[in-house]
Amino acid sequence: LMIDKLAEKARKNSAVCVGLDTDYSYLPDYIRNADLSVANKIFAFNEAIINATGDLAACYKVQIAYYEALGLAGMEAYARTLAYLRSQGLLVIADVKRSDIASTAGKYAQGHFSGDFEADFVTLNPYMGYDSISPFESYLANGKGIFVLVRTSNPSASDFEELQVDGEPLYMAIAKKASQWGQAYIGDNGFTSIGAVVGINHTSEIALIKDAMPNAFFLIPGYGAQGGSGDMASPFFQDGICGVVNSSRGIICAHLKEHIDKGFEQAARKAVLEMREDLEKWL
Amino acid sequence: LMIDKLAEKARKNSAVCVGLDTDYSYLPDYIRNADLSVANKIFAFNEAIINATGDLAACYKVQIAYYEALGLAGMEAYARTLAYLRSQGLLVIADVKRSDIASTAGKYAQGHFSGDFEADFVTLNPYMGYDSISPFESYLANGKGIFVLVRTSNPSASDFEELQVDGEPLYMAIAKKASQWGQAYIGDNGFTSIGAVVGINHTSEIALIKDAMPNAFFLIPGYGAQGGSGDMASPFFQDGICGVVNSSRGIICAHLKEHIDKGFEQAARKAVLEMREDLEKWL
Repeated sequence: LMIDKLAEKARKNSAVCVGLDTDYSYLPDYIRNADLSVANKIFAFNEAIINATGDLAACYKVQIAYYEALGLAGMEAYARTLAYLRSQGLLVIADVKRSDIASTAGKYAQGHFSGDFEADFVTLNPYMGYDSISPFESYLANGKGIFVLVRTSNPSASDFEELQVDGEPLYMAIAKKASQWGQAYIGDNGFTSIGAVVGINHTSEIALIKDAMPNAFFLIPGYGAQGGSGDMASPFFQDGICGVVNSSRGIICAHLKEHIDKGFEQAARKAVLEMREDLEKWL
Repeated sequence: LMIDKLAEKARKNSAVCVGLDTDYSYLPDYIRNADLSVANKIFAFNEAIINATGDLAACYKVQIAYYEALGLAGMEAYARTLAYLRSQGLLVIADVKRSDIASTAGKYAQGHFSGDFEADFVTLNPYMGYDSISPFESYLANGKGIFVLVRTSNPSASDFEELQVDGEPLYMAIAKKASQWGQAYIGDNGFTSIGAVVGINHTSEIALIKDAMPNAFFLIPGYGAQGGSGDMASPFFQDGICGVVNSSRGIICAHLKEHIDKGFEQAARKAVLEMREDLEKWL
């Protein structure tokens, strides 16, 4: 199971998930000015970051929105990035947050678990209920994994996720359902292939969420540019590593802060090393 | 505003929204066997359906999942389909149901309101709250529109959408918020550019949803293959047309039921005419 491999990499390398949310404006000048297609420029950037960080990271999260923003050229860069990661034996989470009725969700499952856009894991939005998740299950049997949005890191997560349902917030109802869905897919490490997205900023809520999802592995966004830091990961990891912490801009934009053009990938490597150290302080 | 144009087309042509959820298996043999790329085959199918129905439909809804399922070739067909619809002066809803934090949602807005994948309307999933909607607002000023998922047509919509929040179901809390968000974008016809998705099967709930969203224009899925029929649209339309009713398989698979190969687009036209008649009975 991919979730077993992910848990092992998180233990061996670090809990760092490198977010390849690659905006064209992040590219160093020498790549932007190169005689390459837009798709090849984006891919060249990602490839260098991947090569410079593969031994340090648990996995990579590719945020498809940044690629959709660039149209067909972006989708080509997206496909090449996922294929390259998988060819290197690295694990990739497609951050797609898809949701739809069952017949349509089945098409998303096909699209993101096979063919040009094949990933190891996808993120899914649960608002539409189990129908929007179940079509992905046939791929779980083959080792793939999913992360259900439970408690997101953005400010307006409060709009609906915190609404009280039977005396507890909505996200707890979702955490409990997702935990039930995951019981059929528990691997050797005790983690289920149906994990959860919980923002690093929800430090006071994580204990209850973990109680409700004892077999969940967590995808934890919000580190770095979004304001999260290593100490905020400690409530997640006090009983051992049970998730990966994503940083995107903090890693792939590290060269911009230091005004580095050539050698940008070493700035990314340094950022991953610093993040690993920051997280390890709290393990 | 696109929402004004849509309301006018719904009144003039019909409330039919043609769903171009084009699966490769729907293509007639003569297109499948043609010496064309996969992208061109899918596009040839869509183009013929569009040409045969453009004068009857209010708009088209393109379900991106069917195109993502086919990888890069699918995305090429998707881009060509949207460009063709817009070049013909037809209105297109990109059924993408995206959701993400604000910076990422901004990328989705860029991707689906400009460039290769430019649509007139998009569907959005509200679970993450206002942050996931607000980045689309700068495009509303330029006339674009969005449809927020309020009450979906799938069986497990009950999992979370029906949970009781302050004595009413969650979807009502979302309906009220979406209505507030939409107040700044009301056009000449009294409809706001922030509409709502409400499944046709929720006939007993629509009155309350309409009360909560007095300026909303509705995207109404669930007709035909999903079990909906014209009588179920009457609670929506008793005070006039305030939405479009989507049918996908019922229209684009009409030729399969009649075992028609060449001339499939006329089967689609016939299905749209029948659907228009069925809806008009209840107006």
